[in-house]
Amino acid sequence: MTLDEIKAALRTVVAIPITPFQTDGGVDYAGYRRLLTRLITNGIQVVTPNGNTSEFYSLNSVENRRLLEETVLALHTHQLHALVLAGVGFDVQTAIETTEMAEVMGVQAVMVHQPIHPYRSDDGWIAYHKAIADAVPAMGIVPYVRDASISGAVIKRLADLCPNFVGIKYAVSNPPLFTKIVNEVGHERLAWICGIAESWAPFFWVGGAQGFTSGLVNVTTTPSLAMLAALNAGDYAQAMTIWAQIKPFEDLRARRDNANNVSAVKEAMAQLGLCNRHVRPPISELPTSERAEVSAILAGLGLATPKA
Amino acid sequence: MTLDEIKAALRTVVAIPITPFQTDGGVDYAGYRRLLTRLITNGIQVVTPNGNTSEFYSLNSVENRRLLEETVLALHTHQLHALVLAGVGFDVQTAIETTEMAEVMGVQAVMVHQPIHPYRSDDGWIAYHKAIADAVPAMGIVPYVRDASISGAVIKRLADLCPNFVGIKYAVSNPPLFTKIVNEVGHERLAWICGIAESWAPFFWVGGAQGFTSGLVNVTTTPSLAMLAALNAGDYAQAMTIWAQIKPFEDLRARRDNANNVSAVKEAMAQLGLCNRHVRPPISELPTSERAEVSAILAGLGLATPKA
Repeated sequence: MTLDEIKAALRTVVAIPITPFQTDGGVDYAGYRRLLTRLITNGIQVVTPNGNTSEFYSLNSVENRRLLEETVLALHTHQLHALVLAGVGFDVQTAIETTEMAEVMGVQAVMVHQPIHPYRSDDGWIAYHKAIADAVPAMGIVPYVRDASISGAVIKRLADLCPNFVGIKYAVSNPPLFTKIVNEVGHERLAWICGIAESWAPFFWVGGAQGFTSGLVNVTTTPSLAMLAALNAGDYAQAMTIWAQIKPFEDLRARRDNANNVSAVKEAMAQLGLCNRHVRPPISELPTSERAEVSAILAGLGLATPKA
Repeated sequence: MTLDEIKAALRTVVAIPITPFQTDGGVDYAGYRRLLTRLITNGIQVVTPNGNTSEFYSLNSVENRRLLEETVLALHTHQLHALVLAGVGFDVQTAIETTEMAEVMGVQAVMVHQPIHPYRSDDGWIAYHKAIADAVPAMGIVPYVRDASISGAVIKRLADLCPNFVGIKYAVSNPPLFTKIVNEVGHERLAWICGIAESWAPFFWVGGAQGFTSGLVNVTTTPSLAMLAALNAGDYAQAMTIWAQIKPFEDLRARRDNANNVSAVKEAMAQLGLCNRHVRPPISELPTSERAEVSAILAGLGLATPKA
């Protein structure tokens, strides 16, 4: 794929696959392949292994690498077509090594997690991403921005320096700020992805978003793909009807400062018989008191749960 | 050292040593040993290699391990006595492995970086730290709390579960909240360390702090140790006189959402001929426009800079 083709491919629903665990706590790689395949056969065209919904920061470096390999393997085995947007991060040397490893596997794009260093300067933010981009000029680079202090001017400087900076996953819950950045950098220069999923996608769309991330698609892809189609058709009324249908689930995930973000998804998947509900610290399984809420939400979405 | 002795040792100035880099970008380990030795001969009794001021998140796993080894080596070589409070973090398995490695080296306490996972539950936060504490019952565990949502009740649950949870590095800039937590957990149960250094130490002291972290000590240990002595003597007037002397430097470090935190320290050290000013992305060297401010601050502190 050319860089322009990668950019075009990113303008869709960007799925963040969960990482299923075995009951002993290890990663269930066979289950991961099965669930990833299901995502793509159900219409997803971009997958981000090692994203936050994948519990990236609870995985060690061996598991991170293996999940990427399993992603590539699943696509190859089933002859499926999807853009793999591999999550990479940590110190810049580690990020570059992981990105180069991904390139060797045939992966064409990486999502660069926001640097976890607690201090950041504008020049340092640019240097961090430029070092990764320069190491793999044929791959597409998509920074994940969760920090309101990263300005349009800074993003534009990176865009001017790096032709393979193809998209941005913007995750600050501020549509006017997002819109200002889109206008400063240019609507066509990047693929503009709303990085805070369906709850914010219609509002970001008004300001120029062309795609959005999703963890919900691990449960069902239908509403998210329908929302994308509605937004692409300019049918905000239909998009907001879907928004209202899925809002209770997204609100449950957001509860307690997002403590439920992954746990609620895995609880729903467990109730649907797709995987177990195991998560790793520093998060924990959905409290028993909230599990019935998930059942009600699934029923409301028309998703049948297996009878006990 | 017994756990009580570790707790007592933590009630002082907890230094976070910088990590000097060579001009080619690699870690300057000989320089690190020299600067660490200087810290301790100048009165510091607790050092935290691999803390945030050490640019922990810009180091790879090999460098993290080596810096800990160099710390132990420097103490051994010069027959110096100081508590090494090793910074550990990332996924829980990596944190445990690093902690166990530190124990083998003779290190007696670890500072557990706040989990970098963007989602956290109370149960998950406890499980994360308990897993580390349980792996090394003879070592002291000091969580680094930067999240206002971690309540006194949660910290008390961990304290009840883990006898070797000996201290906390509290870094939320809210003295009343800190005081509430101290009272809920118990002033004698833990070593209470103000994790946001000299600027906040006198205010946290009122609520029960018994020690504070410092990056400034990399430049000079005199004011920080004098502030500690004043606070221990209950002489707030004297503590605040010192506070006012060093506030311009701490304010410069805090500028642009802490982008200067490490860069200003390295700039001051460079001007004093202690190391170069090199830092790694996502931070950058102190802007030229601010270097004269550092010179003026150093002069104000009575620190002579070598003539050009």
